[in-house]
Amino acid sequence: MPSTPRDHGGGLDAAMETYGGDRADWLDLSTGINPVPYPLPEIPGHAWEALPDRNAQQALLDAARAFWKVPEGAAILAAHGASAVIARLPLLAAPGPVDIPAPTYNEHAAAFAAQGWTEAAAGAAARVLVHPNNPTGRLWSRDDLDAPLVVIDESFCDVTPEASLVDAAATPGRVVLKSFGKFWGLAGLRLGFAIAAPDTIARLGELTGPWAVSGPALHVGTCALRDPDWAAATRARLAGDGARLDALVTGRGAKLAGGTDLFRLYEVDDAAAWQARLAQRHVWSRIFPYSRHYLRLGLPAPGGWDQLEAAL
Amino acid sequence: MPSTPRDHGGGLDAAMETYGGDRADWLDLSTGINPVPYPLPEIPGHAWEALPDRNAQQALLDAARAFWKVPEGAAILAAHGASAVIARLPLLAAPGPVDIPAPTYNEHAAAFAAQGWTEAAAGAAARVLVHPNNPTGRLWSRDDLDAPLVVIDESFCDVTPEASLVDAAATPGRVVLKSFGKFWGLAGLRLGFAIAAPDTIARLGELTGPWAVSGPALHVGTCALRDPDWAAATRARLAGDGARLDALVTGRGAKLAGGTDLFRLYEVDDAAAWQARLAQRHVWSRIFPYSRHYLRLGLPAPGGWDQLEAAL
Repeated sequence: MPSTPRDHGGGLDAAMETYGGDRADWLDLSTGINPVPYPLPEIPGHAWEALPDRNAQQALLDAARAFWKVPEGAAILAAHGASAVIARLPLLAAPGPVDIPAPTYNEHAAAFAAQGWTEAAAGAAARVLVHPNNPTGRLWSRDDLDAPLVVIDESFCDVTPEASLVDAAATPGRVVLKSFGKFWGLAGLRLGFAIAAPDTIARLGELTGPWAVSGPALHVGTCALRDPDWAAATRARLAGDGARLDALVTGRGAKLAGGTDLFRLYEVDDAAAWQARLAQRHVWSRIFPYSRHYLRLGLPAPGGWDQLEAAL
Repeated sequence: MPSTPRDHGGGLDAAMETYGGDRADWLDLSTGINPVPYPLPEIPGHAWEALPDRNAQQALLDAARAFWKVPEGAAILAAHGASAVIARLPLLAAPGPVDIPAPTYNEHAAAFAAQGWTEAAAGAAARVLVHPNNPTGRLWSRDDLDAPLVVIDESFCDVTPEASLVDAAATPGRVVLKSFGKFWGLAGLRLGFAIAAPDTIARLGELTGPWAVSGPALHVGTCALRDPDWAAATRARLAGDGARLDALVTGRGAKLAGGTDLFRLYEVDDAAAWQARLAQRHVWSRIFPYSRHYLRLGLPAPGGWDQLEAAL
C-alpha cells in the first residue's frame, strides 16, 4: 500500500523549488507555529544518551496536568506530536460514521478514512471538533460534545485557555488533544498530548508504544509547561501581533475571516494569485484546495515584518 | 485496556529506590548502549522550530542507505526508535504462528501477541531473528530466513557490520531493523530504521505516521551516519573494552556465555545475588526472568572502570 501524500500545508521546500531562494531568504507564514519559540533550556547529557526514564516521563505529565488544569479523573498521554495521536484515535472504536465539520484540519478525516470510517453527520459514532477550528477559528460549546466518541483538538487553544473544554476529558468517550509545537514554537521537537479517561489513555499508550517521546522533548516540555509567565507574555505578544497583521493585510484589500492568535484567516478575491505574489518576494502563505478565497497567514517573527510589508 | 508493563531491563529508577544514591552515583550497565556517545553536532534552530521537512528527511535516508550499504531495490523508513517499528511489524500480515527463537529481546513477542499472533516454530508465517541475538550474541545465516515474513533485528549489528544480512532486504517479506540509539550512544534521541521492499516500507510508513522523527534526530542522525571514521574508531574501542570487561568479570569466577561488543553475557552461580552485590556499590546490571545464571553487563564509560572493579 503506497503512502498517500496529503495536503499538509507547509511545503516550503516545494516553494523554494518554484520561486528560488534558500531557507534563510524565506518568511514562512504557511503554518500556525509561534515564530518566537520557547528559549531552549540546557539539555542534560543523559536526556540524549539514555532511554527516557519513568521519572522524566512523570515529570512531564505532572507539568502538563498543572498547566492545562486537567480534571481529576482524567489521565494524560505524551506522544511524539499531536499527529501521532490523531493517527490512532480512529482505533478507539469500531469503524462507523464520523462527523468532522468542514472546513478543518484535514489529517483527522484522513486518519478516520484510513481505518475504514465514513464521514456522515447523521448518527455519527464519532465527532471531531477542532477547537478553535483551523482555519476559521470557530469555537465549539459543551452542547456540541454529542457523540459516543468526541475528539476535541485543542492544538491552537493555548492562546485562548479560557475557552478550553478540558473539563470534559474525565467523561468516557471524550479525548482532548494538545500540541506542544505550535504555541511553544518548537514543532521540530515532536511533542503532543492526549487527555481522556484512564482506560482510553491506556489504550492510546499501547497504540503509540514505549519511549515515544525523546529525552530532549521530555526535558524541554517539562521546563516550558512549568513556566506560566512565559505563556502569559507570549499570549499578549501574539494578540498584539495578530492585530498588527490584520491591519496590514486588510489595508491591502483582504477581509478578515477568522483565525486565532497563532494564524489569521483572510478572504481575498483570488487566493492563489495572492500566494503567488507573496511567494515572488519569498513570503510563503497557506491556501486551501476547498476555497478560492481563503488565505491563511501565520505571524511573522519580529524581524520579518518589513519583508511582509514589502511583499504585500 | 490497561497498559501491560513489560520487563524492559533498565529500571535504574527502581534500583535507586531500593539501593539509594542518585543518578550521578550509579554506573548503569543494564543496557547495551555505547557509553561514549557520538559527539552532538550543533543543531540549527530550524531543526527545533519547524516541522521536519522533506529535504532533511531525505538527507537522513540517503546517509542511512550509504552507511548500511542498503541494496538497490530496498527502501528505508526512519522512525522514532526501532521500538516504534517493532510495535507495527505484526500488522504487516494476518495473525498466525510466529517463530521467535528464545531467549531473545522480549519486545518482539509482546508486539506479536498484542496483535493476535501465537508463538509456534512449526509452520510459522513469520520469524523474528535478532542478529546478533540479545543477550546471547548468536548470529543467524541466510538459510534461517525461511518464513513468509522474516524480521531481522540488527539493533546490535553495527559492531559487526560484516555479519549484516541487509542484502536480504530487497526480497519481499524480509525486514531489517537498525537502531541508532545503541551504537551511537544516543538512545534518548529516539531514532531507528526499517529496511525492506518499497511496498512494505510504504505500509510501515502509514502505520508510523507523518513527522515521526524529530528535527534534532534528523540532524544528529544525518551527521553521524555520514561519519564512518567515528564508527570505525568506536568499533575498535568497544572491542578492546569488551575484552577488558571479560578479563575482569571472568577473573571473579563468571564464565563468558556470549554477547556482542555492546554488552557481554556471563554465566554465574546466582545472577540475582551478583546483581544485588553490584547494586550495593551502585553498579546496575541486567538479569533475566528466564535464567538463574545469566548476567548481562554493558560496557563502562572510560571513567567507570574503577567503580566496577571495586564493586566486583
